[in-house]
Amino acid sequence: MSKILRYYYDLMSQPSRALYIFLEKTKIPYERCLVNLGKGEHLTDEFKAVNRFQKVPCIVDKGGDLKLAESVAILRYLAREYPAVADHWYPKDSRLRARVDEYMSWQQHNTRATCAIYFQYVWLRPRMMGTKVNPEREEQLRGQMETCLDFIEQDYLGKGEKFLVGDQISVADLLAACEIEQPKMAGFDPCAGRPNLTAWMARVREETNPYYDQAHKLVYKIAPASVPKPKL
Amino acid sequence: MSKILRYYYDLMSQPSRALYIFLEKTKIPYERCLVNLGKGEHLTDEFKAVNRFQKVPCIVDKGGDLKLAESVAILRYLAREYPAVADHWYPKDSRLRARVDEYMSWQQHNTRATCAIYFQYVWLRPRMMGTKVNPEREEQLRGQMETCLDFIEQDYLGKGEKFLVGDQISVADLLAACEIEQPKMAGFDPCAGRPNLTAWMARVREETNPYYDQAHKLVYKIAPASVPKPKL
Repeated sequence: MSKILRYYYDLMSQPSRALYIFLEKTKIPYERCLVNLGKGEHLTDEFKAVNRFQKVPCIVDKGGDLKLAESVAILRYLAREYPAVADHWYPKDSRLRARVDEYMSWQQHNTRATCAIYFQYVWLRPRMMGTKVNPEREEQLRGQMETCLDFIEQDYLGKGEKFLVGDQISVADLLAACEIEQPKMAGFDPCAGRPNLTAWMARVREETNPYYDQAHKLVYKIAPASVPKPKL
Repeated sequence: MSKILRYYYDLMSQPSRALYIFLEKTKIPYERCLVNLGKGEHLTDEFKAVNRFQKVPCIVDKGGDLKLAESVAILRYLAREYPAVADHWYPKDSRLRARVDEYMSWQQHNTRATCAIYFQYVWLRPRMMGTKVNPEREEQLRGQMETCLDFIEQDYLGKGEKFLVGDQISVADLLAACEIEQPKMAGFDPCAGRPNLTAWMARVREETNPYYDQAHKLVYKIAPASVPKPKL
C-alpha cells in the first residue's frame, strides 16, 4: 500500500472542507479519496474498513497502519507529524494552544451543531428524504444558530483580534468558517448585521485562497442569489 | 490573587467529575471552587467573569491570568503544564495520542450527548421544570444511548484492550466513565448485558479510587435500588 497519506472526504461536509484547505495550504503530500455522501458511499462495508464510524473526513497514514477519524483529532495529528505545518495553525505556545483547543471543543455543540442542524432541516432533509419544513421549527433552529453567531461576533471577534485566537490564522478559524458557510446553501446569510464576522470570514478566505474557494465551489453554486457570495 | 490553580465545578456535572478525579489522582495542587448548578450559580455575573460560557467545569490559573473552559481543553492544558501528570493520562506517543483525541471528539456527539440527553429528559427536566416524560420519546432517547453503549462494548472494548485506548488508563476513560454513570440516576443500568463495559468500568473505578467514589457519591445516592451500585 502507498506510503502517502490518504484523505477521505466529500466537500459537502464542513470539516472535510476545513481539512482539504489545511492539506492544500500546508503542502502535505496526500492522495485524494472522494467519498460521495449523496450516493451513500460512506455506508458501504468497504468504507467501514477505512473508518468504523462511517463518516468523513478521515485519513489513513503510515502505509495503511494508522486510521484516524474526527477532524479535530486529524488536525492535531497532522500538525504533530508533518514538520511542514507552520506553528500558527496549532500553536505550541501553551496559552494559545489552550484557546484553540477550547474553541475546537466548544464548537461541537455550538457552531457545528447549530449551523449543521439548520442546514439539514431546511435544505438537506427535504431533498434527501422528502420531509417538510415546519416554519416554527425553522425559526427555533435559526434562533439557536443566530445566538451562536452573535456570540462569535461579540466575544470571539469583538476584542480586536484578527482571528478567533490571536492575530494569526489557526485550525480553529478553518473549522469555524467552513461551518458558517454551510447554512448559506439554505438561503441564510450568516454575515448579515455582523461586521466582525464579515471581515473575519474575508480574512480567512484571503489567507487560504485559492483553496478556500475550491473547497466552497459547490456551496457557492447551491446558495441562492439572495446570499452574498464570491463570483468564481 | 492566589497563584494556585482554581477549579470550578459541580459534581452533578459529568466532566466536572472527570476533572475532579484527574486533579486528585495526579496530585495537582488546586483550590476547590464549588458552583451549585441547582441554585443557578453558573448564571450569575460573578461567574460569567470567570467563564464567559457560564458552564462548569472551568479553571483559572497563573494567578488569574489564564481562564479556560471545556473539559477536554483543560485536560490537555494540565497534562502539558504540570510535570506531575504521568504520561499514560494523555500519551506523548503520537498514535496513542491520536486515538485519545479521536475518542475525546467522538464522545461529544455520542457518549456525552446520548447519556446526558437521556438523563436530562427522564430525570432532570421533570424535577427542574416540571415537564412530563413521553414514553415514546424516552424510548427513542434510550435507543440512541443503547446504540452508543453497544458501540463502546463491541468496538472500543471488544478487542481485548484493558482501557479505551490501550492497556493504561487515559483521560478518555475518565470522561467516558463519568458520562456513562449519569443515566444511572434516571434508573438506567448501562452495564446490563454488556460484560466488557462492566469489567472496564470496574477497572476505571479501581484505578482511580477513592476519588472515583468521592466524585460519584451523589450519583450513587440518587440512583434507585434497581441499578447496581457500590455501597459506600
